[in-house]
Amino acid sequence: MTASSSFPRVAVLGATGLVGTEMLHALAEREAPPACLLPLGSPGRTGRTVAYRGEALPVHPVSAEHLAAVDVVLASAGGAVSREWLPAAVAGGVVAIDNTSAFRMESAVPLVVPEVNGSALDDVMLGSGCGQLIANPNCSTIQLVVLLHALRSAAPLVGVSVATYQAISGAGAGAVAAFRDAARAVLDGVPTEPGAFALDARPGIGALLEDGSTEEERKMVRETPKILGEDLEVDVTCVRVPVLRGHSEAVRVRFETPVDARTIAAALEGAEGLTWHREQAPEARALAGDPGVHVGRVRPAGEGGRAWSFWCVSDNLLKGAATNAVQILDHLRARTA
Amino acid sequence: MTASSSFPRVAVLGATGLVGTEMLHALAEREAPPACLLPLGSPGRTGRTVAYRGEALPVHPVSAEHLAAVDVVLASAGGAVSREWLPAAVAGGVVAIDNTSAFRMESAVPLVVPEVNGSALDDVMLGSGCGQLIANPNCSTIQLVVLLHALRSAAPLVGVSVATYQAISGAGAGAVAAFRDAARAVLDGVPTEPGAFALDARPGIGALLEDGSTEEERKMVRETPKILGEDLEVDVTCVRVPVLRGHSEAVRVRFETPVDARTIAAALEGAEGLTWHREQAPEARALAGDPGVHVGRVRPAGEGGRAWSFWCVSDNLLKGAATNAVQILDHLRARTA
Repeated sequence: MTASSSFPRVAVLGATGLVGTEMLHALAEREAPPACLLPLGSPGRTGRTVAYRGEALPVHPVSAEHLAAVDVVLASAGGAVSREWLPAAVAGGVVAIDNTSAFRMESAVPLVVPEVNGSALDDVMLGSGCGQLIANPNCSTIQLVVLLHALRSAAPLVGVSVATYQAISGAGAGAVAAFRDAARAVLDGVPTEPGAFALDARPGIGALLEDGSTEEERKMVRETPKILGEDLEVDVTCVRVPVLRGHSEAVRVRFETPVDARTIAAALEGAEGLTWHREQAPEARALAGDPGVHVGRVRPAGEGGRAWSFWCVSDNLLKGAATNAVQILDHLRARTA
Repeated sequence: MTASSSFPRVAVLGATGLVGTEMLHALAEREAPPACLLPLGSPGRTGRTVAYRGEALPVHPVSAEHLAAVDVVLASAGGAVSREWLPAAVAGGVVAIDNTSAFRMESAVPLVVPEVNGSALDDVMLGSGCGQLIANPNCSTIQLVVLLHALRSAAPLVGVSVATYQAISGAGAGAVAAFRDAARAVLDGVPTEPGAFALDARPGIGALLEDGSTEEERKMVRETPKILGEDLEVDVTCVRVPVLRGHSEAVRVRFETPVDARTIAAALEGAEGLTWHREQAPEARALAGDPGVHVGRVRPAGEGGRAWSFWCVSDNLLKGAATNAVQILDHLRARTA
C-alpha cells in the first residue's frame, strides 16, 4: 500500500465477493484511480489475493488497524461484518460507504444515489478526520429511484407499484454456483436438491415478515421515500428469476394529475444516469456490465392518464452496488478537491 | 376410430404439439374418456402417431372429411390453421373449442373459463348438429380471471395491474428446444445466437403495437373484461422468463372500497379452481403438471386498503390451455347428459 496525494486511501471490505470485485474494477477505471488500495476480507481468512491495476494485491483480514490506516472504506461483506467493524472505524475518523442494509434506515446515515440526492453528502468531508457512515441503497431500489427522480419532473408522484425480476448474482457468488448446478440438472431432466433455485420464478427474497411482505420488499418500500425525500406509496413484489446478472423491474407510476406522452418524454430525455430505449426494450443479459440505468416500454397504464408503465433494467452488481458506491466516493472527491 | 355412446366423437387438431399432447392426456384421464378420438395434424404431414390410452394412434392431416366425422374438435395448431378449417367445420355442425386467438374477441364467440362464465355456454348443445365456435382464452388470462372472479365477491373491482413471468413452453416446442441450447451455452460461457432467449427477462411477447403494448398484453387487456362480463381497467406487462413450464403473475387489484383481510380470505377460501397457499408462496416449477390455479403472497398494497397484491401461478399448458379446453368440453357434456 503506497500513499497518493491525488486520491484518498481506500479500503475495500469484502474484496473477493461479487460486489467487491466490481468495486475494484470501478476504482481502477477512474480517471485518477487510488494508488493506495487496501483489500480486506473476513477475519481469519488469509492467503488470498485480488487483481488491481495489473497487480495481485494480498487480501488482509479486516482489523481495526487496517481500517484506521485509510480515509475511506467501501464495505460489502454482509450486514454482520459492517455492524461489527464500521462504527468504530467511523468513530476513528474514517468515511464508510456501506453496501449492506445494516445502517440504511438510521436517520443520521445518508442513503445516497448521487444523481438523486447527492446533496445529502454536503456535510461529509473526506480526509477531515470526521468519520461518517454513508449507506449505499439496495440494488433494486437504486435503479427505481433513478427512474422516479426523472419522472417527478413530469408531475408529482402519488405512488409506485413494482414487480421485480432479480438476478441470482444479487444473492452472492455461492448462490450463482448453486444455481448453475441446479439449472443444468433441470435442463438435463435430473432431480435437484429440495429448495434449490433453478429455472423458476421465486417471489421470496429474504425472510417473510408479519405484514406479508419480504425483507427485500420492505427495503424498497422504506428506502425509496428516504432517498427521494418525499412521501409516496410504494408497493413491491420482489421475485428471483434465472438471470445471472441484471435486475429488471415492471414499474407502474401513479401521478397526481394526468400526464401526456410529451411530458413523460421530456422527463426521461437527458435524465442523469438514465438511458431511454425507445424501440427495443432493454434486456438484462445484453446490459450485463453496463454501469447505467435503462428504461423502455414507456406507455400509459390507465386511471385517466395518471398512471404510466415502464420497464427498468440495470446491472445489480454495478449501478445496483459497486458503481453507485464508487460514484458516492467520486462525489465526495469532487467536493473535496 | 370407434364410436361410443357415452362420449362425443372428439378430434384434437394439433395433436403432436405441447398443448395437443396435454389435451390427449386430459381427455384420457376423464372418468369416461372418449373412445372415439381422432388426432389431426397440419396438412401434408403424415406418418406420425400419438399415444392415447396405451395405443399409438395415427395422426391424420386435417381435412374437411375428418372434421365432419366428429362432434367436437379441440384446436391448438395455431391461428392460421384455426381460421382456415374451423368456420367450415362449425357451419357443418361441429362444436369447435379453439385454443388460438383467432376468434376470441368476436362477439358471437363465447370466451370461456368454466368456473367464471360457464353460463356463456348455455346455448351450445353437443351432438345437436348446431355447430358453434367456442374460444379458449389466452394462458395468462385464464389464471388471472379465476383469481379476479373469486375476488369480486370481496368488493367491486375497479382495475388490475399485472406483471407476468411466463414460461417458454408458452411459445411452443421449438422455442423450448432453442431455449435449452441457448441456456446451456450461457451456463458454459459460450456465445449465443443473436436474439436467442436464454437466461434473461424479455418484456416482449408477440409484436409491439402502436400504443406501446404487445400482442400478448393486448390479449389480456381485452379478454379479461369479456370473460368477467364487466368493465374494469387492465394494464399488463408480459415478460418471458427462463422457466420451462408454469406462468406466474404479480397481480395488484384495485377495489372500489377498502377491503379488510377477513373479506379477502372469505373470497379466496373455497373459490372454485383456486388453491390459496397461506404459508409458502406457490412456485411454477413445483406446480408443473398441476391442473389448478394457485395464489399466495396475499397482502395489502396501499390506497387506503383499496389495493391488494397477489402472486398467482398456473401451468400454462394445463389450466392455461389443455385443461381449460377439456373442462369446456366437460361442461358441455354435463349439460347434454
